[in-house]
Amino acid sequence: MLIDEKDLKDIQDDLLFLISEKDDAKLRNILLSMHPSDIAEMITDFSDEDARLYLFNLLSPEAASEVIIELDDVTREKLVDQLGNRRLTDLVNEMDSDDATDFISDLSEDIAEDVLEQAEEEGADEVRQLLEHEEDTAGGIMALEIVSVHIDSTVDEAIQEIRNKAEDVEDIYHVYVVDDRERLVGTVTLKDLILAPGDKRISEIMDRSVLAVPVSMDQEEVANFAKKYDLVAVPVVDPHGKLLGRITIDDIVDVLEEEATEDIQKMAGLTDEEEVRETSVIRIVQGRFPWLLTALFGELIAAIVLSNNSATLQQVLTLAFFIPVIIAVGGNVGIQSSAIVVRGLATGEIDFGDIFHRLLKEFKIAVLNGLLMGLVMFVVVRVAWQETTTIALLVASALLTVNLVAGLVGSTIPLILKQFKIDPALASGPFITTSNDIIGLFIYLKMATLVLGHS
Amino acid sequence: MLIDEKDLKDIQDDLLFLISEKDDAKLRNILLSMHPSDIAEMITDFSDEDARLYLFNLLSPEAASEVIIELDDVTREKLVDQLGNRRLTDLVNEMDSDDATDFISDLSEDIAEDVLEQAEEEGADEVRQLLEHEEDTAGGIMALEIVSVHIDSTVDEAIQEIRNKAEDVEDIYHVYVVDDRERLVGTVTLKDLILAPGDKRISEIMDRSVLAVPVSMDQEEVANFAKKYDLVAVPVVDPHGKLLGRITIDDIVDVLEEEATEDIQKMAGLTDEEEVRETSVIRIVQGRFPWLLTALFGELIAAIVLSNNSATLQQVLTLAFFIPVIIAVGGNVGIQSSAIVVRGLATGEIDFGDIFHRLLKEFKIAVLNGLLMGLVMFVVVRVAWQETTTIALLVASALLTVNLVAGLVGSTIPLILKQFKIDPALASGPFITTSNDIIGLFIYLKMATLVLGHS
Repeated sequence: MLIDEKDLKDIQDDLLFLISEKDDAKLRNILLSMHPSDIAEMITDFSDEDARLYLFNLLSPEAASEVIIELDDVTREKLVDQLGNRRLTDLVNEMDSDDATDFISDLSEDIAEDVLEQAEEEGADEVRQLLEHEEDTAGGIMALEIVSVHIDSTVDEAIQEIRNKAEDVEDIYHVYVVDDRERLVGTVTLKDLILAPGDKRISEIMDRSVLAVPVSMDQEEVANFAKKYDLVAVPVVDPHGKLLGRITIDDIVDVLEEEATEDIQKMAGLTDEEEVRETSVIRIVQGRFPWLLTALFGELIAAIVLSNNSATLQQVLTLAFFIPVIIAVGGNVGIQSSAIVVRGLATGEIDFGDIFHRLLKEFKIAVLNGLLMGLVMFVVVRVAWQETTTIALLVASALLTVNLVAGLVGSTIPLILKQFKIDPALASGPFITTSNDIIGLFIYLKMATLVLGHS
Repeated sequence: MLIDEKDLKDIQDDLLFLISEKDDAKLRNILLSMHPSDIAEMITDFSDEDARLYLFNLLSPEAASEVIIELDDVTREKLVDQLGNRRLTDLVNEMDSDDATDFISDLSEDIAEDVLEQAEEEGADEVRQLLEHEEDTAGGIMALEIVSVHIDSTVDEAIQEIRNKAEDVEDIYHVYVVDDRERLVGTVTLKDLILAPGDKRISEIMDRSVLAVPVSMDQEEVANFAKKYDLVAVPVVDPHGKLLGRITIDDIVDVLEEEATEDIQKMAGLTDEEEVRETSVIRIVQGRFPWLLTALFGELIAAIVLSNNSATLQQVLTLAFFIPVIIAVGGNVGIQSSAIVVRGLATGEIDFGDIFHRLLKEFKIAVLNGLLMGLVMFVVVRVAWQETTTIALLVASALLTVNLVAGLVGSTIPLILKQFKIDPALASGPFITTSNDIIGLFIYLKMATLVLGHS
């Protein structure tokens, strides 16, 4: 059943009433008819944490395990704090290896250890194995549940293998084909399997183009890989080509979302990833304040630049009125030119090799934009403000220069950061605007002092 | 074969040599061994457009159709301009209905009409039908190629239907189940189909939870829907529930990427979506200049605010030195608080109902950040700049006030825009920084004038 916002609100009210009545039978019936993702969405909106726990405790371990992995980090953390280790273990036993690993790695060390001790041995071993990979690599997000057959198998044998694994592996789109050394040598889609005669050899119908990723590949690259080749599942191999696991598209989608959110947040000057539903103001401020402080001290350098040129400002106070214009133009040009590079780097459309090409393009853009804006400013300062032609020319040419510098700085810094393996999105935030402010004001006042004859 | 950047470069060099030798046989052999996505990536990097065309013309219509839809818009447009209508028609005949529709809608009207005239009738009709839907809705991105069976069918009949459609529908993960009126009533995975006995009724093994989207749903909502329910394909239905088509996950991934890019670009003040590979400087400037001009005129209002308070600035020139600080703090706080809301709205984690909750949270954050920054500024101005306590207090409290205003404006404007169906990302760019600059300076100088006794 497709549930929209309004329906969800109504169901929520019904459930809250039934919780107050402690009508567990009716509650269970309603929950059974709902999709785990809808249950997750609904209980996230519960302001009453006891009601949330009450409802959650009515869910079977299977449903509860699906609901809890769909929750956002903040809500999940709160709920986990209310659950005992016994219940946590039951949930983990129901999860696929990748979800169990994510879930366990978010628990405190004591609890994680305890849960793994109590959990079913096979699952616990798998989690321990997966925990050894870096969290943001292919190995860190893959699941070990796959269906694979030897290259000498027949179609019927492959179908038998699907039957054997049906319980374990929920979504099966492909059967992976391996050789004697368990190296991935091909894939067969379920469609091909259905259409082929049962005694046909897998090797005759398999697709031999092996689109797999190495276990150590960064998750953003994995996502771009899946996107490029339109895959619904990406097999993961070790350095010898041995098949280790697979990453399903829902996890790829999460990675893409996560990386986009991270880039947007970094560009906006939020250091740690800030959860939308984070309720701790302290935690939020811990993420936001460092960048604000950096910007503050950066702008104090701008204040020093101004203060060093106080004689010029004293002489022509009008120059001070255009400080916001100079700063804003530098900031906006810098953000425009860096955003396109940051995004291009994230989606793989740009790499370091493009730096000179990019510089040349941004140079042309900056000249054109700068001339246009300079012209507008000249007219405004000369006609509307009735300043001298000298002052008008000064402001206009400072604007052109700031355009050039900001465009070039904005487009190259992200490329250079990427080359040094620093996240380029960092460059596009307060860092670039602040440095452009300082450089812009310096140019502006240096030019003014030269023209007006102060030192 | 997995091809990395370096391999691609080598192959590229080999191909360019073979093109100069006109060794078509060898070229065709190499192309046959490559994945269409790799061919697309490689020829995108070709600086020689004739070489690109030469290579493209060696591809079979089938391969060429796959390559051309994988190209970025800029490269595709250039290539299309080099191809005749006859060749374009051959390519369209090979495409799935959704790709053909996208492709045709990017052609000039004359050419599109001509290509549709010449194309196979069935395909052309499908494209005409799909072109009637808005481009950014479920109907605009769906494909008509699906496998569906009547609810009274057996498993064997469903498999026969897969066989019938195998040519037309490349990726089959589910068979959709419809009733007498062609309304979608369930889905069966290929896995379940493989495991069930042939004479079993579909109705007995199908999943009755119909996770479908209405044909008019916005593509961003469709993407969030697919993400929420972890779907690999989303069926699309008309208002009566009749099954119309499906959207596969690769298109959903493209939508998510496109929307994230759009948000990032809008936040950075790029009005039209700027293609990373766009080569026309004029087109780029057309996208960037409008926002820069808006920011310029906005900051001229800031200049007027300063100019109206020139007596105060003349009296204490130091106040002018801190203009960049006030502006930067307002700008950065505004971007921080709006970015989190813009992203939350895009991923569906925030809606208008959260406005008061959000306001309260941002208020608390702003108070805390503002007090901390105010304290830093007080010390800097009093101790480092050796200004009077009055001036130091003035700057510090202006900073606190700017924090409050920027935090509240930044977090509410996107919510209000969204309510009026305007893209909230627009708010987070130059618009919010510019208005915060004006408001911030106004507050700063109003307070200064009050304290220092000017009018």
